[in-house]
Amino acid sequence: MSVTVIDYHRRMSRWQPDAQGRLAQAALELYVERGYEQTTVAEIAHRAGLTERTFFRYFADKREVLFGGSGALQELLVSTVTEAPNSLPPIDAVALGLNAMADLLQERRDHSFRRQAAIVANVELKERELIKLASLATALAAALRSRGVSDLAANLTAEAGIAVFKIAFERWIDATNEQGFPELIRESLAELKAVTAEGA
Amino acid sequence: MSVTVIDYHRRMSRWQPDAQGRLAQAALELYVERGYEQTTVAEIAHRAGLTERTFFRYFADKREVLFGGSGALQELLVSTVTEAPNSLPPIDAVALGLNAMADLLQERRDHSFRRQAAIVANVELKERELIKLASLATALAAALRSRGVSDLAANLTAEAGIAVFKIAFERWIDATNEQGFPELIRESLAELKAVTAEGA
Repeated sequence: MSVTVIDYHRRMSRWQPDAQGRLAQAALELYVERGYEQTTVAEIAHRAGLTERTFFRYFADKREVLFGGSGALQELLVSTVTEAPNSLPPIDAVALGLNAMADLLQERRDHSFRRQAAIVANVELKERELIKLASLATALAAALRSRGVSDLAANLTAEAGIAVFKIAFERWIDATNEQGFPELIRESLAELKAVTAEGA
Repeated sequence: MSVTVIDYHRRMSRWQPDAQGRLAQAALELYVERGYEQTTVAEIAHRAGLTERTFFRYFADKREVLFGGSGALQELLVSTVTEAPNSLPPIDAVALGLNAMADLLQERRDHSFRRQAAIVANVELKERELIKLASLATALAAALRSRGVSDLAANLTAEAGIAVFKIAFERWIDATNEQGFPELIRESLAELKAVTAEGA
């Protein structure tokens, strides 16, 4: 089943000043102001002008505010790669998938930036983010194998793709850089190709 | 200061039936038999025929048995890359560093295999291993920058190098594969070059 950007927005909706969006924004503000560990669900609900009960209608726990979207993002990557034209070489199918993720995150730029500010302030959350990247790579490799790509090529293309995503993301999040995420993905992929083409 | 394979062996010595080696072997056996969480330092010392006090002379805690060598491994990677001939392109300098690590781990094959069996059985340890890989990539990028490589190229070459290491390591640890680690590094790097050379 295909996951579209619309599905993702439905699951992660933030544009409307709805309860879920207000809770997510309040949570991210508090994580940055006071630290993730020090913030309670009661405080998040209070800041959003809602009840704890409403919080738990949208999020299983405090961490879900930060990582609840990663499953949908992974599905977007996997479905884009799986459904890419068969004629595309693996690296180009991966590029399509990365671009789909980058387009989506670019639309959610403010949320992504706030989220990242909360994550970098906490070692445990940074570790969780690394683990999510590793599981993105695993899912991406499986999507490539489903296209008939060999194990070794699938694993390396997937790891290379996630490396491109990681480096582009770090540049995007850097406040001194005003480039869009899709453009940074293209640049990083081009640079990866250039550095691996060198040498013996 | 250069870190040689000899320094590493001095710090990690296991070949001799010395106290440190016996403790490490006993710990790994117990982690696999009973699980990491369920194993106490007292049990490790008992299995090795030594005292807890002796354990703490060599290891700060239970986890140190598994990850105590990673700092020295990182120094070996960094010093090899830093001291590689200036004429080498970044990807070849990285290849030298990966080969140095692979040679060392190949010499310590039995220990590495036991260690990995303990790690894959525990989610927390698998996460710790991912974090160590991420810090290897960070250190490798810094070593490349010290060679005058630009930020973007350094970051991507480092991530690509660690991706090659990760995939080669997974193949090496696979019991059905009898290839040596250095050979697997060469194959993985060649495959990475092949997959990134395809496409638009």
